[in-house]
This record gives sequence, structure tokens and C-alpha cells, in this order.
Amino acid sequence: MEKSDLNPRGIIPPMITPLTARDTLDIAGLERLIEHILNGGVHGIFLLGTTGEGPSLSYRLRRELIEQACRSIKGRVPVLVGITDSSAIESLAISKCAAENGADALVLATPYYYPMTQPELLGYLQRLVPQLPLPVMLYNMPSHTKLAFDVDIVREAMKIPGIIGLKDSSGNMGYFHQLMHLAESCPEFSLMVGPEQLLAEATLLGGHGGVCGGANLRPRLYVDLYNAAMARDFKAVTNLHRQVMEFTSRFYSIGGPTFGVISGLKCALSLLGICGGAVAEPFFQIEGAKRAEIQNCLNTFGISKP
Amino acid sequence: MEKSDLNPRGIIPPMITPLTARDTLDIAGLERLIEHILNGGVHGIFLLGTTGEGPSLSYRLRRELIEQACRSIKGRVPVLVGITDSSAIESLAISKCAAENGADALVLATPYYYPMTQPELLGYLQRLVPQLPLPVMLYNMPSHTKLAFDVDIVREAMKIPGIIGLKDSSGNMGYFHQLMHLAESCPEFSLMVGPEQLLAEATLLGGHGGVCGGANLRPRLYVDLYNAAMARDFKAVTNLHRQVMEFTSRFYSIGGPTFGVISGLKCALSLLGICGGAVAEPFFQIEGAKRAEIQNCLNTFGISKP
Amino acid sequence: MEKSDLNPRGIIPPMITPLTARDTLDIAGLERLIEHILNGGVHGIFLLGTTGEGPSLSYRLRRELIEQACRSIKGRVPVLVGITDSSAIESLAISKCAAENGADALVLATPYYYPMTQPELLGYLQRLVPQLPLPVMLYNMPSHTKLAFDVDIVREAMKIPGIIGLKDSSGNMGYFHQLMHLAESCPEFSLMVGPEQLLAEATLLGGHGGVCGGANLRPRLYVDLYNAAMARDFKAVTNLHRQVMEFTSRFYSIGGPTFGVISGLKCALSLLGICGGAVAEPFFQIEGAKRAEIQNCLNTFGISKP
Amino acid sequence: MEKSDLNPRGIIPPMITPLTARDTLDIAGLERLIEHILNGGVHGIFLLGTTGEGPSLSYRLRRELIEQACRSIKGRVPVLVGITDSSAIESLAISKCAAENGADALVLATPYYYPMTQPELLGYLQRLVPQLPLPVMLYNMPSHTKLAFDVDIVREAMKIPGIIGLKDSSGNMGYFHQLMHLAESCPEFSLMVGPEQLLAEATLLGGHGGVCGGANLRPRLYVDLYNAAMARDFKAVTNLHRQVMEFTSRFYSIGGPTFGVISGLKCALSLLGICGGAVAEPFFQIEGAKRAEIQNCLNTFGISKP
Repeated sequence: MEKSDLNPRGIIPPMITPLTARDTLDIAGLERLIEHILNGGVHGIFLLGTTGEGPSLSYRLRRELIEQACRSIKGRVPVLVGITDSSAIESLAISKCAAENGADALVLATPYYYPMTQPELLGYLQRLVPQLPLPVMLYNMPSHTKLAFDVDIVREAMKIPGIIGLKDSSGNMGYFHQLMHLAESCPEFSLMVGPEQLLAEATLLGGHGGVCGGANLRPRLYVDLYNAAMARDFKAVTNLHRQVMEFTSRFYSIGGPTFGVISGLKCALSLLGICGGAVAEPFFQIEGAKRAEIQNCLNTFGISKP
Repeated sequence: MEKSDLNPRGIIPPMITPLTARDTLDIAGLERLIEHILNGGVHGIFLLGTTGEGPSLSYRLRRELIEQACRSIKGRVPVLVGITDSSAIESLAISKCAAENGADALVLATPYYYPMTQPELLGYLQRLVPQLPLPVMLYNMPSHTKLAFDVDIVREAMKIPGIIGLKDSSGNMGYFHQLMHLAESCPEFSLMVGPEQLLAEATLLGGHGGVCGGANLRPRLYVDLYNAAMARDFKAVTNLHRQVMEFTSRFYSIGGPTFGVISGLKCALSLLGICGGAVAEPFFQIEGAKRAEIQNCLNTFGISKP
Repeated sequence: MEKSDLNPRGIIPPMITPLTARDTLDIAGLERLIEHILNGGVHGIFLLGTTGEGPSLSYRLRRELIEQACRSIKGRVPVLVGITDSSAIESLAISKCAAENGADALVLATPYYYPMTQPELLGYLQRLVPQLPLPVMLYNMPSHTKLAFDVDIVREAMKIPGIIGLKDSSGNMGYFHQLMHLAESCPEFSLMVGPEQLLAEATLLGGHGGVCGGANLRPRLYVDLYNAAMARDFKAVTNLHRQVMEFTSRFYSIGGPTFGVISGLKCALSLLGICGGAVAEPFFQIEGAKRAEIQNCLNTFGISKP
Repeated sequence: MEKSDLNPRGIIPPMITPLTARDTLDIAGLERLIEHILNGGVHGIFLLGTTGEGPSLSYRLRRELIEQACRSIKGRVPVLVGITDSSAIESLAISKCAAENGADALVLATPYYYPMTQPELLGYLQRLVPQLPLPVMLYNMPSHTKLAFDVDIVREAMKIPGIIGLKDSSGNMGYFHQLMHLAESCPEFSLMVGPEQLLAEATLLGGHGGVCGGANLRPRLYVDLYNAAMARDFKAVTNLHRQVMEFTSRFYSIGGPTFGVISGLKCALSLLGICGGAVAEPFFQIEGAKRAEIQNCLNTFGISKP
């Protein structure tokens, strides 16, 4: 595959980063997790995103993860690497590490400390993206970065060579539809949705897939839903979407509104013997009664050790 | 139709309020507008919502509108009346006027001046709703009221007799899916979506229709999209949804981000000779070059005098 | 006093509205409350503000309050009347009622339902203020209205005849200093602060006083603090400011973060036999254990029946 | 000075980081800047804060800055080092670097990528602070971190050994007064204010000084204002506060609302020949007409090469 031909499509899980301690990679767990995810038929793997605790990890560990994951994935699917940072220098350094290890694309949200205007944000992209060694997906994540890519800015950003798509985690489907409308004249521009609850509609109405956190645990469920939506098999879509809603409504609420998704996924993966449940600060590892609740939830949904 | 059997479904346009001046109802225009909308095959009409400028109108004019509109509609479709107010006394007074004139249901957003907590909001509903003479749809509109109905509060509110559904204008489809999941055990609870860009997916995935502002101008377009989605005619849905995106992206941007929808709809309806373009403060009436742009847009989309 | 010469200065309490039920004015309580407040030496009384539950009251009761309060105050101090409304027509109607009953000025926050841009807000003021029969103080209250008067808009608004000052309840002293800097060339423009915790510094550094909710209960405390600050009696300022902090930290926390101020003031005034404790929706009346806590707090601070 | 006896007071400028390029420290400029600031009589220097572009710099450069600055300051005033980071591991690493180079204290805002609840934030402090090798000032900066330290959390955080104070850049003086009220029983707890427009009132009413960005350029002005406020010389306070307002209103508006402060300070310092004007992304260096405006502004206020 030519790097410049990358055209992200399908289910690209934002992989959690398996840890044995806050600054220690769980290498054996990483290998098991990658096989677990690939066995589900996913179309790519996204490292160091929000679900991957990218911003919480040391730069040393981020590099180690890129190396180990690329080595384990061995080109079976495209690898995307998150380089979002408050420091452009560090974004560049990680992008070089990604390229050297054979990754396929980068994922870039807005800088997330200093507020800025939309024209300033466009200027940032126009200066930074040409320095990056790999194609870039923009990542719209205003709940965490305080700053969205407005539609008018995306229109301009689409003209910057190297920007190949956008992942939208805003949850605002009106915005996503505006982007799809904008991209009609540019069919190779990839538009993917973050929240897995929106995978069905995004795919049915013209989007290219989802970056679904839950696909760390249940990759097949999201791949099946994506395939059903692409095939316009409406009965299957309805059934699989309901499964996603049942599962996420129950599962993510256990760990609480802020830390529930990531700490919960890691807890479940450790219960399945896939990798450790350790998390980096500011997250808390789920233990005790909450861990038992997660086990119950896995039982309810028939999720067991592979 | 028994009032208690009302089960809002389909396209229920939030009718603009035709004015000849800020405090003068355009009665002839109102009659033409109602016929225009009903000719499109809509399933109900919603008076005094956000698009209807409810909060900007004098109470005298709100009453006059209810009387005239109910008289003109003559029971051909259900009439819903917005009673949202910062004063519960005034909400009650409008609700009585609605009942006396034969309206079918009320629509109630949160009070929008004083901030409050979710339990305080639930208490407000528990005290107010039993005093209302008609069934009530909740109206989630946090961009204007500063306050959403959280999912946990909706769960409790569903137990209050008289609450028959919820219209969600948050644009947050993750929230809407959570409500649909919540309401699976309560199939008569009506869930409708506000932004017309979300009508297709909301209807495809289990929602009951939309309260589409654009249906003031093009009622048939939205009715067709709703019917196609209910029939799972995916080709028609795709085509009609694209028409909605093309039209709204172009049309609503003319009048600017805040006043564009309402002032724009009124300008277009006046260009079509249906009713006057006057608006109540704080809106501005669209004039001059912008009015010409709206005429151009109508021409482009082939929208002409009925 | 010529109306056009009004120059608000000092302590102008935002009077709570005494009620015996949500839509029934406590007329005897109103007279006692006015005498209680005037005995404290205040420089004006502000009716129908946020503390006065203006947006929660029926229009009938708002009118009755204006009549009764103006009659009882008998011109002993200037009377300011809040006319903030989502409907400009209703703002105008209340402004006429205020003028007919001999009030001295109006207080106007931004419309609080529809979002708007700053230029749109300036246009609203430029159209509405010339229609008002009395001088106007602007009221910056973004926590409740979602919309602030930006410094650049205040600069333009100062040129509109009839606008005589601004009350800032944003709590943002950097903004307040910018306004004071702006108004240096316009010494008759009145700048008053809302939060009573900021009265000391606002008055020390060039502001003209405060619209202190606590002055309903303890008018003398705030008048003393204002006078000490004007006299640059720093020792007295320090002592009185500390009393304000001790009292407000303790007192307002009893009723909770949202309803604590207004429900708490009404509860305390009813315990002192001044007026009833009833509140309009969406507030709750304080009862039971919370009411006992408020009595304890009054005892602690030596506040007893006049 | 014993580290544990550090009691931050007075004017502690958040030093800009002199650069010749985005990842190259301007070492000669750094030495000139430090002498310039110390000549103004300041009471400490704060490295790697918001004004210091801490979050935008590479970790390599952050370390180089700490080394060089500590070497140049030579213990003449206490050195505080910002360690705020989305990664706790990197915060710890910088804290060790600070301790090894003889810095006196650390400054820690909330992690700024993942949202969290207040109890989760307290847990973060309770786990992280005991691992830090130096005393810690908390840094309340919700405009940049999305998350404030609520008063109730500060109450608990004051019990964590090692936390010696809080710098509040929220601009919310009501909050600051609550903290001062809270800290009355703990007189060694340092409370400093961020926005320089609030230095006068914060110091007059019990605060311990300010972390004033403008003190990079005009250290004496802020030191004089602090001293006048401590001496209760009200005439001098009024005069100096007015100078601060005149200067900041004019100067910071040149570079625009978001980048104006930091890019403007660097531009002015380069015009004075003190250090280079280069900035790290996402900021833009001020050039051309804006640079001429800054020179004009310096001329107007009589600020010339030292």
C-alpha cells in the first residue's frame, strides 16, 4: 500500500494502551490485545488517541508503544498514530517516530491548552501539516480540547496537502452532515465518527466508518454493524445498533461519567485475561465492587475469554 | 380523537407566527400559511415554539394566535402549543387558553432564566405538569434555555401522568439514542427530533418524526423524507436527505448564524406571497441584498408561489 | 429630582418580592420590608430584578408590585424597575407602568431566550431604548441571560441617550475595571456591582456602589461598607468586608447553590416577621431543618426582629 | 532559606521564555531578561507558566530553561516552576529537574485534557503531591484547563502536606474572597492573583500579591502597586492601578484577544533589545504594522531601552 493512497474506512478501534503500571507497557498484553482486535475483522488500528490515554502517557512510553504495536501488527491493517499535543515540537517528534516504525497515518486534534480563534487554528494547520511525514486525519474533539474545527475551517483545511480526512467525536450529527455535504466533491476525503452510538447513522448516510472505543472489547460487533450498514441490511442494522445501545448504556455507566469508558474497558479486558487493567493518571483503576459489576455485565452479554 | 390518546408522530412543523408588525398578527397570512403547510401532508402543527418566536411575542398576541390558528386548522391535524416561560403562572395561563381553543397538547421546555439543578428541574415538572389541562411534550433545548433534561430526569419524568413525549433539539444524537433505548418499554412515548438535518437518522433508528422548521416553507419535502424513512426506502431517504442538506446549508446561512433560520423563513414566505416578513425583536427583518439572495435561493431550488 | 438627573450611587438593594402565594403579593409585608430597608439608609430600591424574582412573576403581579412599592416609598429614594424580558413588547409595557407610577429609572438585561451576536445586541438597544419613558441602567448578567454586554458594545451603548449606567453582576472584576477605565471621560455614567462580595473593591477603585441582595436583610451593613469605602477608612472597610464574607459564606450556602440566595433571604425575612417566605416557581420555599439552620445563622450573627 | 519555609508574597512575574526559534532558547536574552526583572524589585520568578509558554515548549527546552534560569537567578529570589501537564509522569520528571537545579517551589494546574469531577481532581492531588520533591502552589486557570479547583476542594487540598498556596487566574474575585475567608485560619497559605488588573484589590483585601504578566516588561510598576497596597497608601494605589489599566487596555489589545498578551510582551521585549520575539506554536510572532503599533505604545508610555 502506498502511504498516499490511504483511505481510512470501516472500523478503526482507538486501542487502549495496555499497562502493568502507569509508566510500564504490558508487552505481552499488547500482543494479545492486537490479536483479539484483528480477529474481529477491523480495518485499522488507532494508537495514542483519547481512549489510548495518549495525553496521559510519558513520551518514552508513547514511543515504545508505537514500536511494539507496529511490530506486532506487521502491516496487516493500517496503523494510525495520535500526535495531538500542546507542543508542536512534541507532535513532530512523535510523528517521526510513527513514520520510522511504519505507521500509515497520523491523527491530530487542536492544541488543547491555549484558546485560539478559528483563523489562528487554520494557520496552525497550514504551518504544521506540511512538516509531517505521513498523511493526517483531523480529530474534532471539542469536549476535551475546548476547540472545534468549524465547518469553514475544514473547508480550507481540505486544501492542505496531506490532510486525508476527519474523525468527529463531537457527537453533533448536524455538524457531521455538513462535513459530508462539504466532502461530496471530494470522495476520497474520509469522514469517520467517534461515538459508537452514532456508527449506524453515520455509515447509513454517507460516512466512512467509526473509531469505536468498544471495539477494543467487542471488535466483531462493530464490524458487523458497519458491514450491515454498508450493505443497507436494515434489519441487521436495527438489531446490531440496539445491541450497541444496550451494551454501552449498561457498561460505560459502571465506572462513572468521566472515567467510565477507559477504566471500564481496561477492567473488562483484564477480566478476560487479555491485558492488565492499570491506567495512567488522572484515571483510577476500577476495583472491588465495580470490578464485580463489570464481570456481571460481561456475563450478561455473554462476553468470555477468547 | 381523545386527547389522552394523542401520540405525536410524523412531521409537526414549528409554525412561524405571521406578523404585519411586531405586535400585530397577520391573520390573512396565517390562514394562507396553515393551508400551505397542511397541503404538504403534515401530521400536526406546533404553535409558539422557538421558530414561532413564542418567547418574543406579547401574551395578548400569543392568545390571539392560538385562537385564530385553532379556528383555521379546524381539527384537521393535532395542534401543539408551546407554553415555555420563565413564569409558571404565565405558562399555566397559556395552557388554559390552548385547552379552551381546542388544542391537543402542550410543549414545555425548562424555565430559562434561573439556573437550577436536575433534581430541582424534576421537582418543577412534578409540581407544574399535574396542573396543566392537556398532555405535555417536554422540549429539550439547551442552546436557548441553558439547561437540558438529563437522561436520568427523563426516566423519572416519564412516570409523571400527562407527559407523553419529548422533542429533542439538542442536536446530540447520542442523547437521543439513550432516550430511545429508555423508551423501549414505553412504546407510546413520543420521541421527536428538532434539527431537520437529523430527521432521516432519527426516524430510521426508532424515533417518531421531526419538528422541522423548514417544513413551514417546504412541508412536502420533510413529509416525503419521513415517509421514506418509515418505509425503509433507503434510496429515497438518501436522495431526500441530500436535498435537505443542500437546501438548509445554503438557505439558513444567508441570514447569519443566529437569526438566519427564523428571519430567513419569514422572508422566503413573504417572497412567496404567503405571509408578511415582519419579525418581533430581537430579530431583524431581512431586507435588501439578503432578500435578493433568498429569492435567488428559492429560484435555485425551484420553490415558487403555490 | 429631575428624572434626567438621576445618577445612581450607593446601595440600591434588589428588593425581594414579598408573596403570600406564588401569585399573591404580601402587601403588608411589602410595607414592612420597605421601611426595614429604608431604615438602613439605602440610596435607592430596585424592583423586579433577579433577586426580586421578576422573571418568575405574572405580569399582573409585577404591575401590582410597582404600584404598591412606589406608593409606599413615596419618593424617599429613587425607584428602579427591572424590565428585562424575552419579549420587547412586554418590556415596554412594564416600562410604561413604571413611569406612570413615578419610578425613576429602568434596568435592562439582554433578552434571554434567543442567542445573538454583539452587533445584534447593540442593534436591539439602539431600537428599544429610545422607546422607553425613563432612563435606563444596563444589567450585565451572563450567568442567567447567556449573553454579556462586551466592552466594545458598552462603549457604543454609552452614546445612546437614556442609558445612564450599568450594573455588572458577572463577578468579573477585570471587566468592571475596563468599564471604569472606559467611563473615565463620562463621570456621570453610573457603574454598580452586583455581587456583594465585590462591593468593597468596586467602591474603593472607582465604582459607584452595589446592588446587594443581602441588603434586603441587613441594609445597614452594606451602607456602612459603602460609606467606609467612599471615606477611604481602610480599617472599617476591612472589618465590614470580613463581616460580609462571613455572613454570605454561611448564610447563602444553607439553601443550596442555585436557590439559596433568594429562598434564603425570604426565609430569613419571614423568621424576622417582616414578610412571608413564599416564593414563585421554579424556586422552593425553605422549610423544616433548613429553616432552623437559617434561624441559627440569624442568631449567630445577632440579627433579630426589628 | 529552607524550602519548607517558602511563603510566596509580592510580585512574582510569570517569566516569558526567550526564544530565538521555536525550540531554541535565547540564552543571552534570558540573562538580560532576568536582570531586567530583578532590577524591578520583584519577589520571585515563575518559570514555565501560561505566559512562559510552558505547555508549548519541548521537554528538552523546558529542562534547559530551568537550568539556565536557576543558574542566572542564583538564589536572589525564589524560583517557582510550572509542572502542569496532561501526563503526571512528565509533571514528576519536570519537578525533579526543578529540584535538582535549586528551584524553590512548583506550580500545578489541573490536568487539561481529560474532563474529571471535583472528587477525582482531589484524588489526583492526593496521589500526586506527596511524590513531588518541592512545595506546591495550586494554579486555578479554568479558561485554559476547563476545570477549576472548587472552594470545597481547596479546603481539602489545604490539608495535603506540601501545598503552600494557590494562584487564581480565574478573574472571579468572589471566588478569591471565598478562598481568603477559608484561609483566615491558615495565615501561611499564600493566595495570589493572576490578572494584573486585580492586583490592587486582591492585595488591599488580604491577598498576598500577584503573578503579573506585565511585570516581564514593567516590573517596577507592579512592585510599586503591591507596595502601595500593602502600605494602604490609597492615593498611590489609585494612581498606579489607573496606570495598569491604561497600559494593559492599550497594550494587550494590539495582538488580539487570544495571542495578544504573550506575543505582545515578546514583541515589546525584543523592541527594547532585551530578548528575541520568537514564539512557539500555536502563537504567531507579531510583525509589521502590529510591531509598529507596539513601538508606538511603548513610546506613549515612556518605556525605553534600559
